[in-house]
Amino acid sequence: MVTHLVQTTLLNCNLEEHDIDQYKDQVKEIHYQLENSSNMTGWIDYPLQNHDELFKQIQNLKNEICAKADVLVVIGIDGSFLGARAVQDALTPYFGIHKNGIEVIYVGHHMSGAYMKQILTYLSDKEVYINVISKSGGTMEPALAFRVLRQYMEERYGEEAVHRIIVTTDPEKGLLKKTADLAGYRRFEIPPNIGGRYSVLTPVGLFPLAIAGIEIGQFMEGAKKAACELKDPDLANNHAYQYAVMRNKLYNKGYSVELLASFEPSLKKFHEWWMQLFGESEGKERKGLFPTCVTYSTDLHAIGQFIQEGSPILFETLLHFHDIEGDYIVPYDERNEDGLNYLAGRSFNEINATSKQGTALAHAEGGVPVIQLEMAKLDAYHLGYLIYFFMKACAMSAKLLEVNPFDQPGVEAYKKKMLELLNSSQ
Amino acid sequence: MVTHLVQTTLLNCNLEEHDIDQYKDQVKEIHYQLENSSNMTGWIDYPLQNHDELFKQIQNLKNEICAKADVLVVIGIDGSFLGARAVQDALTPYFGIHKNGIEVIYVGHHMSGAYMKQILTYLSDKEVYINVISKSGGTMEPALAFRVLRQYMEERYGEEAVHRIIVTTDPEKGLLKKTADLAGYRRFEIPPNIGGRYSVLTPVGLFPLAIAGIEIGQFMEGAKKAACELKDPDLANNHAYQYAVMRNKLYNKGYSVELLASFEPSLKKFHEWWMQLFGESEGKERKGLFPTCVTYSTDLHAIGQFIQEGSPILFETLLHFHDIEGDYIVPYDERNEDGLNYLAGRSFNEINATSKQGTALAHAEGGVPVIQLEMAKLDAYHLGYLIYFFMKACAMSAKLLEVNPFDQPGVEAYKKKMLELLNSSQ
Repeated sequence: MVTHLVQTTLLNCNLEEHDIDQYKDQVKEIHYQLENSSNMTGWIDYPLQNHDELFKQIQNLKNEICAKADVLVVIGIDGSFLGARAVQDALTPYFGIHKNGIEVIYVGHHMSGAYMKQILTYLSDKEVYINVISKSGGTMEPALAFRVLRQYMEERYGEEAVHRIIVTTDPEKGLLKKTADLAGYRRFEIPPNIGGRYSVLTPVGLFPLAIAGIEIGQFMEGAKKAACELKDPDLANNHAYQYAVMRNKLYNKGYSVELLASFEPSLKKFHEWWMQLFGESEGKERKGLFPTCVTYSTDLHAIGQFIQEGSPILFETLLHFHDIEGDYIVPYDERNEDGLNYLAGRSFNEINATSKQGTALAHAEGGVPVIQLEMAKLDAYHLGYLIYFFMKACAMSAKLLEVNPFDQPGVEAYKKKMLELLNSSQ
Repeated sequence: MVTHLVQTTLLNCNLEEHDIDQYKDQVKEIHYQLENSSNMTGWIDYPLQNHDELFKQIQNLKNEICAKADVLVVIGIDGSFLGARAVQDALTPYFGIHKNGIEVIYVGHHMSGAYMKQILTYLSDKEVYINVISKSGGTMEPALAFRVLRQYMEERYGEEAVHRIIVTTDPEKGLLKKTADLAGYRRFEIPPNIGGRYSVLTPVGLFPLAIAGIEIGQFMEGAKKAACELKDPDLANNHAYQYAVMRNKLYNKGYSVELLASFEPSLKKFHEWWMQLFGESEGKERKGLFPTCVTYSTDLHAIGQFIQEGSPILFETLLHFHDIEGDYIVPYDERNEDGLNYLAGRSFNEINATSKQGTALAHAEGGVPVIQLEMAKLDAYHLGYLIYFFMKACAMSAKLLEVNPFDQPGVEAYKKKMLELLNSSQ
């Protein structure tokens, strides 16, 4: 018997076993379509392949960088940014830096002039390495940031700059590949058949995460476990497909917004990675659930009112990790002016988990369908699993919606308008 | 002639002048209802009142705290947290601390045990003051955090702790008021007729912001200007009411999500304040636009696909500041491997503004209604104005929806469930 790492339960979804079962054949058909396709499906078996060489290369670079630098600046946007940032935030301390890594900061994911100016000041008293990540090199935000930082590194380090710039890009083509060849930068390769939002388990995510102190071996082990377990074409055994079917069913019932919620604030960026994965994969042909997210209990006091009693347009996906490293026990206070002595001796995480239970019950009673996704522990292994789980669910979900999970034609529209405006004002 | 500080324009909203005008009488009626009500409407005239004494008290405390502490820890949740945090993030540097203030960090807005443990370690080598903000003192998240930090301060500072804890609470009643009296803590008062999400212009926001280095005099001046200008009952002259009417009209046309977007990442928390204001004020009786937010251009590559081509359920409110402090000029590079020399000499903020224009055009052409809100400058004065603008628009908008802008009955549901669970597990 398979014990699933992601436990899926439903509250108030009004879904019968029959509602799910009826997808069985369609799911199996799509499963084999995806398995047998070679069109941007490289991520499906990537964790099952041997990456010993890659891990060795990353470890060697890590040893060098941790010895010679205080900070790694990662230049990237979209799929070349959100995944690494998400996992880093989830697994590094709220204050300060992970004991097994150095500081990793991000630029090139927007075009704020204030941010660009300030980051250069910030770097001035630190030793720096750069990792620029772009499949093509043609996206404006990271290209502009790299133009600035490349010159900065060359002025500051002279000939040594070439050793302090690491490029992650397509193995064969693109502007950035050409630049790397001309300059002689060391390179990591982005597999051509893996798109940005499915790339966090490749060097796109692995290298920055290693530098930030994350155990990428464990991270990949989790993904590998998921890639094995979720290869099962049978809906009854595949929790990722079950999640895809549940959200498709709720969408067809008329819900238009899926709200991903969790109770650990370090998961905020992980939510944003999830939003991009589903929003960019499904939001086309005037279809798709609008993906959005909240972090509780902060947002229970902010957006909770709307969830409980506002327009009945949304369902909630509650993501919960049972074991979170670091906790604090509520102290006894003989004054008891706050009336909270009945909680003395319990831990914050324990009370937080109760708050999660209370929220699920209250929202379900308020008429909101709730999907609960539970995992044992918030660590690299489980996040690796969960990332693969969501990617697999997303590909299935988009296919159920009859849209292409792997393109993003709508993102080009604003780029085109912007270029027209920039060129006309020359 | 009044020159409005917030410029409102519409793209692709299919709203005729007539659609707006027809609200004229209803708006005037609600305006006078609000003006003449004494039920939680204290925020309407608060900026017009004399606050010399309050500002003097804040300045004195600021002098003391900046001399004796490295960090102010603010304990609060919801309306006692989001406003100050929003303005602080918008107006302090991306890296490091404002030159006119000290570090201000927040706790008690959630129940993560990891965060609580880490914050105490973080504080161990810094001199600390505490500001605990709660109208009642009865909300669990800040009450638990205060219980921990109060004991921490007493153990660390002994008798001096009483001088290092500042309380912001109701002037007469509540658990926290009682504690402040018993212990002899210095106090700021939250006016009883101003609710949490309308309180950032009171000591709730003013005190932490002053410590963080924000010019709260300018901030209040901006709010005062808004309180004067937006007292006009005539829809034709009142841009806040126009915004309220536009969103009501779009809601009635069937849009269910309002997406607030801007191009400066420091505004992320400001968006969250806005989400809370509108979500908690309007989301009741199964009504209301679901408020959500994005920061561009990061999210143009993430959620932009959905906006451009996904389910047609949303309209976009683009918030833009023309002048943002700090900028960087794109350098010329003779290699021009990235092909971007045509942008050399232009500034990042200029290109970012063009990206804003391109986005508005692309989304409008894609069929998304766009409301543009433009302000001259991102500074304390203009943010003070904008905050008041949104509060006035929100009260009007909720009244147009025929719900109470000032209550939040749905927030109690999860609290009740949580307490039941906590008590049953004793």
